[in-house]
Amino acid sequence: MPENKMEQLLEQMTIEEKVGQLVQLATPFFRGATDRGEITGPMVQMNIDEEDIKNTGSVLGASGARETNNIQKVHMEESRLGIPLLFMSDIIHGFKTIFPVPLAIGCSWDIELAEKSAAIAAKEAAVSGVHVTFSPMVDLTRDPRWGRVMESTGEDTFLNSEFARAFVRGFQGDLDNERYKVASCVKHFAAYGAPEGGRDYNTVDMSEWMLRENYLPAYKAALDEGCQMVMTAFNILNGIPSTGNEQLMRGILRDEWGFDGVLISDWGAVKELIPHGVAEGQKQAAEQALKAGVDIEMMTSCYVNHVEELIEEGTLEKSLLDEAVLRILKLKEKLGLFENPYRFANEEEEEKYILSEDHRQASRELAAKSIVLLKNDELLPLASDKKVALVGPFADSTDVLGPWSWGGSAEDTIPVKTGLKEHFTDENLLIANGTGIEEGTEEQMQEALEAAEQAEVVVLALGENSDMSGEAGCRADIRLPEVQLNLLKKVRALGKPVVAVLFNGRPLDLREVTEHADAVVEAWYPGTEGGNAVADILLGKVNPSAKLTMSMPYSVGQVPVYYNSYNTGRPKDAPDAQERYVSQYLDIPNGPLFPFGYGLSYSQFEYADLQLSSDTLLVDDALNVSIKVTNTSDLAGEEVVQLYVRDHVGEVVRPLKELKAFERISLEAGESRTVSFKVTEEQLRYYHANFEHKSDAGEFTVFVGTNSEDVLAKSFQLQK
Amino acid sequence: MPENKMEQLLEQMTIEEKVGQLVQLATPFFRGATDRGEITGPMVQMNIDEEDIKNTGSVLGASGARETNNIQKVHMEESRLGIPLLFMSDIIHGFKTIFPVPLAIGCSWDIELAEKSAAIAAKEAAVSGVHVTFSPMVDLTRDPRWGRVMESTGEDTFLNSEFARAFVRGFQGDLDNERYKVASCVKHFAAYGAPEGGRDYNTVDMSEWMLRENYLPAYKAALDEGCQMVMTAFNILNGIPSTGNEQLMRGILRDEWGFDGVLISDWGAVKELIPHGVAEGQKQAAEQALKAGVDIEMMTSCYVNHVEELIEEGTLEKSLLDEAVLRILKLKEKLGLFENPYRFANEEEEEKYILSEDHRQASRELAAKSIVLLKNDELLPLASDKKVALVGPFADSTDVLGPWSWGGSAEDTIPVKTGLKEHFTDENLLIANGTGIEEGTEEQMQEALEAAEQAEVVVLALGENSDMSGEAGCRADIRLPEVQLNLLKKVRALGKPVVAVLFNGRPLDLREVTEHADAVVEAWYPGTEGGNAVADILLGKVNPSAKLTMSMPYSVGQVPVYYNSYNTGRPKDAPDAQERYVSQYLDIPNGPLFPFGYGLSYSQFEYADLQLSSDTLLVDDALNVSIKVTNTSDLAGEEVVQLYVRDHVGEVVRPLKELKAFERISLEAGESRTVSFKVTEEQLRYYHANFEHKSDAGEFTVFVGTNSEDVLAKSFQLQK
Repeated sequence: MPENKMEQLLEQMTIEEKVGQLVQLATPFFRGATDRGEITGPMVQMNIDEEDIKNTGSVLGASGARETNNIQKVHMEESRLGIPLLFMSDIIHGFKTIFPVPLAIGCSWDIELAEKSAAIAAKEAAVSGVHVTFSPMVDLTRDPRWGRVMESTGEDTFLNSEFARAFVRGFQGDLDNERYKVASCVKHFAAYGAPEGGRDYNTVDMSEWMLRENYLPAYKAALDEGCQMVMTAFNILNGIPSTGNEQLMRGILRDEWGFDGVLISDWGAVKELIPHGVAEGQKQAAEQALKAGVDIEMMTSCYVNHVEELIEEGTLEKSLLDEAVLRILKLKEKLGLFENPYRFANEEEEEKYILSEDHRQASRELAAKSIVLLKNDELLPLASDKKVALVGPFADSTDVLGPWSWGGSAEDTIPVKTGLKEHFTDENLLIANGTGIEEGTEEQMQEALEAAEQAEVVVLALGENSDMSGEAGCRADIRLPEVQLNLLKKVRALGKPVVAVLFNGRPLDLREVTEHADAVVEAWYPGTEGGNAVADILLGKVNPSAKLTMSMPYSVGQVPVYYNSYNTGRPKDAPDAQERYVSQYLDIPNGPLFPFGYGLSYSQFEYADLQLSSDTLLVDDALNVSIKVTNTSDLAGEEVVQLYVRDHVGEVVRPLKELKAFERISLEAGESRTVSFKVTEEQLRYYHANFEHKSDAGEFTVFVGTNSEDVLAKSFQLQK
Repeated sequence: MPENKMEQLLEQMTIEEKVGQLVQLATPFFRGATDRGEITGPMVQMNIDEEDIKNTGSVLGASGARETNNIQKVHMEESRLGIPLLFMSDIIHGFKTIFPVPLAIGCSWDIELAEKSAAIAAKEAAVSGVHVTFSPMVDLTRDPRWGRVMESTGEDTFLNSEFARAFVRGFQGDLDNERYKVASCVKHFAAYGAPEGGRDYNTVDMSEWMLRENYLPAYKAALDEGCQMVMTAFNILNGIPSTGNEQLMRGILRDEWGFDGVLISDWGAVKELIPHGVAEGQKQAAEQALKAGVDIEMMTSCYVNHVEELIEEGTLEKSLLDEAVLRILKLKEKLGLFENPYRFANEEEEEKYILSEDHRQASRELAAKSIVLLKNDELLPLASDKKVALVGPFADSTDVLGPWSWGGSAEDTIPVKTGLKEHFTDENLLIANGTGIEEGTEEQMQEALEAAEQAEVVVLALGENSDMSGEAGCRADIRLPEVQLNLLKKVRALGKPVVAVLFNGRPLDLREVTEHADAVVEAWYPGTEGGNAVADILLGKVNPSAKLTMSMPYSVGQVPVYYNSYNTGRPKDAPDAQERYVSQYLDIPNGPLFPFGYGLSYSQFEYADLQLSSDTLLVDDALNVSIKVTNTSDLAGEEVVQLYVRDHVGEVVRPLKELKAFERISLEAGESRTVSFKVTEEQLRYYHANFEHKSDAGEFTVFVGTNSEDVLAKSFQLQK
């Protein structure tokens, strides 16, 4: 006896209708879509027909109330059982109001603003007819060659988990009751952020201990926050493609973690089991993916063409199909689509909310909090009566939205020039590109040098275009393109003070930039209000407070470099270390150019008086850790106070430092504040060799400071 | 009742005497050693006394019959039970007659000569009083930043296993009966060759599937060949330092593989369990290492100071100590030390054999077969009537022995200059350094350019000094040092034909070298007869035939790059691949500059007529694979014919290609030969997800060719 409506519905469905729910196709496949070009070809290639499309359960990439409502209307008229379509889209860092890329948001360490950015994205998406966003991406990443680092909040498991929760809260809110919310789909399960050589889609291999200790927690955090869906990863994990990995998805995700939501493949990933070399053809790919637990196949047709046959011949249990369909129906039910298939899609509300002043303001605020001041030799902030030359390919570029911002548009975007014009007279602001991103002419260069000659300060807006990162945007050389470095050096040679403002989607090798510029501002891709946010920072309207959440490597030859690494048996700086026989490079330091947690302010903060409430911690007790932070400057500012812990002896090796807590504080000029943290036994747990998650009694050190290297330290004993 | 003499002996030993057997100290600790300076300090630090030294079981690094015999004599006079010392040393690629570094030997693909090199090393070592060599190192390596790649034979599991066996045969021969043999100690167990970031001693993490499929087989191959000892690795493996890793050493090595020989720690690695953070102090380190199965502790004193106490308090079973001691005693017995503690140590035979003409000749032959011709624009071989300028820091350098050649000496070594002088008149051979390795003067540069001006051909002898690779010799930038590249470019600008001859311990980024030189000769570190071997190649006395066993990367940003990688789900060159969304770098190719198996000859070889005896292979049958190879040139030459297999569908992903067989053939000018290989089901087995080693029925492709990329292909079906 069916327990609820959805089970009753399931009973009425034909096998074709059931399989249809497992299919996701892109917008142009559907009648009612604005652009239906080029679909005939793909339909033939995919061996699907209009009947299959009629049965399809979900739509990829549709947006705009008019279009989604049209598609839904046609669909509902044709659907025998009145099962509405689910509309899913990649709403990654804003929908039309684009926020900074997630890596930048990570650098804000501002969990509340991150949540707000997701809520705004959800609202704009929801009124445009989107039901599910393929976000957050919470892949831990340690390799800046990988183009998709811009989509992660960085290299720290704990911080990524906090952001994962924030984004899920922002997107989903109280999904059952709250208006303008969308379901969240955490991705990419699992360990997509660790491709060999930093080359997208490439081999991922790691021990299960590494996976559980470092890579899995952020996915789990999103699910603990109620995230409705999970997306598989493109990569293999330990020899088996994630999308066909039963141990990973049935074993860990469903059985161990109890996830009963919808699991969707990444684009084409079911069919990619064939090139991966674990499936002979589409039929076997369908079998493996469904057995592994993938409910929805995105954009390939292995399920639609083969699941029925696989069930009929007894290769697949019918129950596997039924449970997948039921999960999808339940999500539709949860989203209220059976009551109102159009949900929040509303053209008037699109008009009202999208790119509203509130939304823009939130984006500008988050952007300014995401911009990391890397170097400042007493040059910034700029006074608005200075004569400034704004030079470089990003001087007047709207390519500041970054990858995964397809909803954003150039005309809504504020380039740096526009931002600075708010503060400078036309006379005082000279503008020249100097070069393109990867190529430039002598004429451009001359024009830029002439502008620079006339100025008191040169602002060089440099970077990567947004195609140089993002999915499949991997680079083996992570320096700025040579032409831009040349521009920097030539401008530098004029003897003027130089500010480099950088727009890029990954940590770069910035040795030459920091050498030749007096101030270096890492703006990442700051989003719709980018130019304004950059101006806010350069002029000191906002005091920089962002901190790196991915180490800036010294050079690509050092990759991977991350703060929470292990000590090795021969650490370089041990008191009894030999000169040669230690873990080091002969030609570069072991450490990055800028460490995790690093970022300057126009204020100066002094840390003093680290206190622990006790030198021992008992299991059910908490240690109070306090530190006095003083703003010794004459400017109000914000600071992210960071607390790290080291566990000195473990059953397995333990990181040199692990972030356990942080607090963003505001301090007026000259103000002091004592910041307090609680450290409990729970925070000291880790995965043992048998994957038990527990702590060990023994010595720990607490570090508190302004970044992962600049810290005060005190030790305590955990007693058990 | 003791079964044999050694068990009887064990019964008579005090606990101090037993623990002493587990201790290995360096030569200067022992009375009778030539140089006993600076030992008092370490003895105090290590908390050991003369009594401990008297009980010590083995000596590290002693050599020379006089010294070893002196030490042994003193020891035997003082040993209560007459237990002789074992002398162990790092004899890696020759003892006094230095052979090319192992990476170069790998490139010879000459298993017989490799075996011979080990036999010669064994003979020279044995007459010098060495009983055990810490060799072969068989660590699979894919990261040229790691300095110790020079000590491995490369990136291929199968080839490394073949060389592992050859070296063990060469060192040990029929150890019980044959004269001048030494026991072999395979290292470093396990996976030492995969340190993160290519930084020595750094974190190693991989799945057990990866470990078993790629990293473990070469250690196992050495043991299957009868290798007597195993050395632990410095690195952690999946969170636990190898040296304290019970699952690895008791689990896999002893229980699963049945290894009952002596397991020794690497230098200091037992004590390094403390900085690794898994042992609180030396006592716990001793406990973990002995429990994990480490019999001998090299150069630290955790065992000698704590094992007795650990047994007395019941933390360690006495049987663990006894079994370790018994293994050591049995090795001493096997080596005949109880009958003759001096074994083959003999000053007259040292005189006779060491650096004998035979040994030098073998070294020269192997060196010439190890030198890889990477590029040759119709420049080589050189005619001896040409006027040649020999320029560069290796023009007259004896630093061509490479790391791990402490027994070799400069005065016995032939530099390039000396080698070329055999062939050129003084008038026709102009010599200038041009620069040092990493620094040079303008004066040096001018001298070199003047020499080059006068010459018809410039031979540039460039490279890394031997400290730039080897243990702890890691580089983040794997290009030649800037000054040498400048020298190359300046010489190039003169318009003379340029041959670059390279001396280095790792695959380098050679883009600039191949761009600016007409011919590029990779000489690695060729050993004692290096200059002669290089001359043999340059003059065409020996036709080059070596082939890379490690991919030469395009740039460091591409690392790791290796031929037997996996296809990914979005391979770059698939017929239906998108332009952007494939696994690639935006700025460089996916492939290396020179692939695995690559190497030119002065002859040209054509491959044709690949034939399979059947298009199906049955389990107990063999497929005959034949190919016709023709030397189309007018020069006799040797060629390494390589056979690779691809398994198209596996339960886990399978490499794009895997080397399965090879044959070194000689072909006269114009000669053709049909080369045949057998392919059997056994060669098609791999580790499945449950670690079962078996094959799957299905489609396979056989590739045969001159390197891993340049191949002919045919498919067959395995039927089961």
